Amino acid sequence: MPTPPNFENFSCPLPLQPGERVVLGHGSGGKLSYDLLTRVILPALGEAAPRGFDDSAIVETGGGQSAFTTDSYVVRPLFFPGGDIGRLAVCGTVNDLAMIGAEPIALSCGFVLEEGLPLATLDRVVRSMREAALESGVYLATGDTKVVEKGKADGLFINTSGIGRLLPGKSISGGGAKKGDVIILSGAIGDHGIAVLSAREGLGFETDLQSDAAPLNGLAAAMLSAGEVHAMRDPTRGGLATTLCEIAAQSGVCVEMDERSIPIHAPVRAACEMLGFDPLYVANEGKLVAFVAAGDAGKILAAMRTHKYGVEAVVIGRVTDAPRSQVRLRTLIGGTRIVDMLPGEMLPRIC
Amino acid sequence: MPTPPNFENFSCPLPLQPGERVVLGHGSGGKLSYDLLTRVILPALGEAAPRGFDDSAIVETGGGQSAFTTDSYVVRPLFFPGGDIGRLAVCGTVNDLAMIGAEPIALSCGFVLEEGLPLATLDRVVRSMREAALESGVYLATGDTKVVEKGKADGLFINTSGIGRLLPGKSISGGGAKKGDVIILSGAIGDHGIAVLSAREGLGFETDLQSDAAPLNGLAAAMLSAGEVHAMRDPTRGGLATTLCEIAAQSGVCVEMDERSIPIHAPVRAACEMLGFDPLYVANEGKLVAFVAAGDAGKILAAMRTHKYGVEAVVIGRVTDAPRSQVRLRTLIGGTRIVDMLPGEMLPRIC
Repeated sequence: MPTPPNFENFSCPLPLQPGERVVLGHGSGGKLSYDLLTRVILPALGEAAPRGFDDSAIVETGGGQSAFTTDSYVVRPLFFPGGDIGRLAVCGTVNDLAMIGAEPIALSCGFVLEEGLPLATLDRVVRSMREAALESGVYLATGDTKVVEKGKADGLFINTSGIGRLLPGKSISGGGAKKGDVIILSGAIGDHGIAVLSAREGLGFETDLQSDAAPLNGLAAAMLSAGEVHAMRDPTRGGLATTLCEIAAQSGVCVEMDERSIPIHAPVRAACEMLGFDPLYVANEGKLVAFVAAGDAGKILAAMRTHKYGVEAVVIGRVTDAPRSQVRLRTLIGGTRIVDMLPGEMLPRIC
Repeated sequence: MPTPPNFENFSCPLPLQPGERVVLGHGSGGKLSYDLLTRVILPALGEAAPRGFDDSAIVETGGGQSAFTTDSYVVRPLFFPGGDIGRLAVCGTVNDLAMIGAEPIALSCGFVLEEGLPLATLDRVVRSMREAALESGVYLATGDTKVVEKGKADGLFINTSGIGRLLPGKSISGGGAKKGDVIILSGAIGDHGIAVLSAREGLGFETDLQSDAAPLNGLAAAMLSAGEVHAMRDPTRGGLATTLCEIAAQSGVCVEMDERSIPIHAPVRAACEMLGFDPLYVANEGKLVAFVAAGDAGKILAAMRTHKYGVEAVVIGRVTDAPRSQVRLRTLIGGTRIVDMLPGEMLPRIC
């Protein structure tokens, strides 16, 4: 869920115009998603609205706090190099729990199936969910299956929600970044988005490139043991740029990053150049960005690099205090560019 | 989720036949749903499968137990007499928590929107969710929105998952029914299914009939305070018959009920006669059936009748010990009929 920067000062939005309709960009995870959330959904929810805007909510469950999160998965095609909708559905939700410092325990799974879907396809997807669940140390505690008529869905959609254990006072928020923090990225960006796009459009990058879809709870736990982490998030829809904009806004700080330091695999860079995409906005499903106490950055980085999903971890920038709520990129040629959230929709149905 | 009677003795199922496909009946909540679950989903999930088969799972969340449940809502049309997809999405999940004796706390909400959906429709649905959430005493803690291309979904689908607080040792399972228990139904059956069908097909029953969609957590809490409840479930997809079959199987008991005692509103009875439906299989969204200690039945019934959603509560039968896992109906003309789960699909997309 994108982060409304000034929810504290939230006031009555402009009324809906008659005839306004949902567009694909409302699902981008960028500006239009934020607009839909703040202009339609939150005002209509009123007192029943969420009380925070991190990857997971914190819910008082009696005797302790639990992390709680949800995501629907509509990726197309269902199978792509390095993953499939089942692996995404488990990893994405596990990661949302891990990003607030929770230990993922159990997921729910809601299928919406299109009449006519081969049972063998469902079987393959569920086997992939099992594998990802076992890797993450979670199980599927509860589920539901609905079927709609042929032509009323697109193969299958999956919703997973997740519950995680939170140690009291140990939760991490996107609002925790502080001046002086070092910003660490766990690896190269854009693999997931380009792998899916390539499989969808038959662009033929498949042999070179795999989605990075992976559960990050082990990596996150290793980081939290190694030092002080102030904020953490996995840059999925909307990419690294949108995630950094969210954290800058939520924490009221300035994020300064250096383009040269951001790892991008060669096939992703080539595809982005060919297609006119900015890799900063391309989705990832197995990367995280963390804002850590400067004094602990070395220890945290070292811990990350010993972990399977953190081998390529690097420092990509620092936090300053002004201009507040801004992300500034020192470009390859030495200029400075202000980075904004994804404005429209680049790659629909990427997760 | 339907209840596999002998999951303890679960063994390798028949392999999938090539070419087998999803049919609408797989979403019925009856026999075909059970088949999909036990023959495809559970074997593929393996060690990552659910550990119980009640309306909600029990998850150890550190410092206590939480109830956890999920449901996707694909009802068509989105608005019908007495409710809409938003009210259903909140009430259905609240009820699944309440049916195991939990106090609902928070829901998640995942939207899958079809490109082109009027924002005013979304606004109306979300306002209805707010109203149902406030009535139930829950809030929407976390959410997600995805958009798919025009023609790839049908307006909007909603998934809600829910977390509830469970007092240690106070959970209620569908496996708890005992010989001698009195079976109480909270009110008339079939209103929801017939109201939705009527709105969908323009049959013109609308003026007479409203969906019963309602949150039952208040009613359930009043019942638990009044006496000993051994098992409880809300008969949604698959209707009262399927729910009683599930509990009979899960508890290994015989359910004996009397057709004359089951309340059915006149327009529902008329519609069922006209359309050839058995009201025992028609979906409800605001009713519960409870198996209670015989000595407490009077107190529980009295408590129910003082509650808005239990005014019509009646005793519909008793539990005996043989034949095990069977539901027997004493019919209006004095015969006995063995009642089975819904075999196919009667009303697709009823919730």
